[in-house]
Amino acid sequence: MSMKMIEGGINAPKGFEACGIEAGIKYENRKDMAVIFSKEPCVAAGTFTSNKVKAAPVKWDMDKVNNSPFVQAVIVNTGIANAGTGKEGMDQCRETAEYASKVFNIPEDAVLIGSTGVIGAKLPIDRIKNGIDKLFEAKSDDAKSGTDASKAIMTTDTVNKELAVTIDIKGTTVTLGAMSKGSGMIHPNMCTMLGYVTTDAKIGKETLTKLLKEDVVDTYNMISVDGDTSTNDTLLVLANGMAGNEEIKGGTPEYEEFKEALHFINETQAKRLAGDGEGANALIECKVINAGTKEDARKLAKAVICSSLTKAAVFGHDANWGRILCALGYSGGDFDPENMELYYQGSSSSMLIYKDGTGTDYSEEEATKLLSEKEVRFLVDIKKGNESATAWGCDLTYDYVKINADYRS
Amino acid sequence: MSMKMIEGGINAPKGFEACGIEAGIKYENRKDMAVIFSKEPCVAAGTFTSNKVKAAPVKWDMDKVNNSPFVQAVIVNTGIANAGTGKEGMDQCRETAEYASKVFNIPEDAVLIGSTGVIGAKLPIDRIKNGIDKLFEAKSDDAKSGTDASKAIMTTDTVNKELAVTIDIKGTTVTLGAMSKGSGMIHPNMCTMLGYVTTDAKIGKETLTKLLKEDVVDTYNMISVDGDTSTNDTLLVLANGMAGNEEIKGGTPEYEEFKEALHFINETQAKRLAGDGEGANALIECKVINAGTKEDARKLAKAVICSSLTKAAVFGHDANWGRILCALGYSGGDFDPENMELYYQGSSSSMLIYKDGTGTDYSEEEATKLLSEKEVRFLVDIKKGNESATAWGCDLTYDYVKINADYRS
Repeated sequence: MSMKMIEGGINAPKGFEACGIEAGIKYENRKDMAVIFSKEPCVAAGTFTSNKVKAAPVKWDMDKVNNSPFVQAVIVNTGIANAGTGKEGMDQCRETAEYASKVFNIPEDAVLIGSTGVIGAKLPIDRIKNGIDKLFEAKSDDAKSGTDASKAIMTTDTVNKELAVTIDIKGTTVTLGAMSKGSGMIHPNMCTMLGYVTTDAKIGKETLTKLLKEDVVDTYNMISVDGDTSTNDTLLVLANGMAGNEEIKGGTPEYEEFKEALHFINETQAKRLAGDGEGANALIECKVINAGTKEDARKLAKAVICSSLTKAAVFGHDANWGRILCALGYSGGDFDPENMELYYQGSSSSMLIYKDGTGTDYSEEEATKLLSEKEVRFLVDIKKGNESATAWGCDLTYDYVKINADYRS
Repeated sequence: MSMKMIEGGINAPKGFEACGIEAGIKYENRKDMAVIFSKEPCVAAGTFTSNKVKAAPVKWDMDKVNNSPFVQAVIVNTGIANAGTGKEGMDQCRETAEYASKVFNIPEDAVLIGSTGVIGAKLPIDRIKNGIDKLFEAKSDDAKSGTDASKAIMTTDTVNKELAVTIDIKGTTVTLGAMSKGSGMIHPNMCTMLGYVTTDAKIGKETLTKLLKEDVVDTYNMISVDGDTSTNDTLLVLANGMAGNEEIKGGTPEYEEFKEALHFINETQAKRLAGDGEGANALIECKVINAGTKEDARKLAKAVICSSLTKAAVFGHDANWGRILCALGYSGGDFDPENMELYYQGSSSSMLIYKDGTGTDYSEEEATKLLSEKEVRFLVDIKKGNESATAWGCDLTYDYVKINADYRS
């Protein structure tokens, strides 16, 4: 595989500009609006929250991704989610796009919108418009501006999350960039709160859409911070074709190359969201192998990283494997508790904890050590078939409670 | 309806004896074994955890409830769950029943067993046997012994949970008594961790089983503390017929009378479990009315009381209704976010918070007051049909995290 990680993020691919600015939407003295802008029209693919309550910008983007001939900009704000805002919320999306369309000189239906923050509050539309003016002035293709954009979309995130890679498509270098945010209300079911991927690849809309939909199932849809599927989950991929490669078509080695790069980006960003979950001290990974079906593997892995008791045990560095067993048991995934194995895996060692229906004679001290690492890994061997899946979450800490008991104030 | 609450608990019905004693299973200086004993053989009905990993005593009881001609005693221990213990765990159930059978002079298959505590640890069988000797000596029909039994089955519970009522069946007084425990790993899916109901009613096994299975769906299965369905959930009803009533048959007014009493007992105990959830400061009730189907109503109500973010907001007395809306949205239950209403209900007032797709102009100060009560109630009017359901949970607090990060130590 030709993939290489490079410096930079969302505006690393050719022809993309970005930036983050202070618009004063809700917070003082912090960046809270970002733009992703492409000099050329883009093919767009997106996956969106399965929540029945969809934020206005989610409805807006779903329509545009499906129906616009092309898209060219994404305007993002944090602080206010523009969800649970009824007709007024939709009107504000239209007003935002209309204004951005004039400022950026692109069609209104080429403007996508992302919002994240408190549900129910109304957007201060004048500040949004002022913000759009500033975004237009500040947008740039330098790496710092990309980083600023990734910082501007943060809410309770403690670190910004950006990434860029290149691949080689028949001698042409194609670049992919990404930025994501999300820390609480993270239990994506189609995709996570806000994730953006840009690429200068030339690729058809149908091909890109198929690739994205297949990939989120094993990346963003396999993470959870708190089991709450947000109203605003949005993952978008924009491709502007400016790399000049021969168009990537399904069933070719180039398709596989691009697919792997997109998967790497999505998996890396999804894991970063899980590891930076609200209040988290540790990333929890649960890998299920040799399950009878892919669906069983996914259900089993996800139940473990979603279990409040397992998450609290990891916070306490307590090798309480019964909670993992319990979570597997209620997951709905098929397995035989009398014929499976559970391992704790550390950065440099692995321990068999449970086998043949009962705990092994493991060292509690060693187990506690493994559970004290920054990445806590569980490996579950189901011994039934050949399917595997991995899910990511984080520990449940005092700070999660603190952050969410105080969030609005 | 003839139902009256009376003093007492599990041994209030005629012919039942109970007690709680110190057996030193895991803790020092606290009661940790209990017995429920009936002087006459009992018809038994039970519902058990849907977790694929079933504790040995659950497997034991499922077999006996289904296949024994009658049951006469339940031996319960706390501290160790006897789950994830393989063949050895089943052998220990058999040994426990065998020993109790000799001491109590009843058939081995008339002995039911309940265990709760840490998963994976092995039972100290000698202490269990010593405990059974003590239980035989101490069992009694006085109210204090019933209370002792309800205290002996507690783990992280902060209060014991017992209850007794009488009803009139064609001039004969029939009594029902109950005790339950459960505080963490509470997300029953068939029934909760340990719940016991006794009655001196004369009632057939089939009738009793049908009644119980129908009732848990709207009582124990509608509560959640942390979303973790335990490996040990067991709810048993024992009926010894000693009241001397004419046998209660389906389709009669007496059946309805008994059904209401059982429902009152189960709902009261289930709510007590939810309100005494690990670390909880407040009981959360979510009532969904006018849903299109019963299943929709249940899903919607349960999603709200299970939402970590809603639970944390209640802990913070924060009127963050967006989180309730969000939980309804991902529940899988059908509704129209643009045409429903959400109310906060206090002990003496009610506030409309959300209507027609957006928040109302409610007073934050008043809302915070309602959210500071010991019982926080949400009413959701779906405006679609005639079905309703209620679910109960508790707030998510620092203490929940503390208790579960430290549980085993």
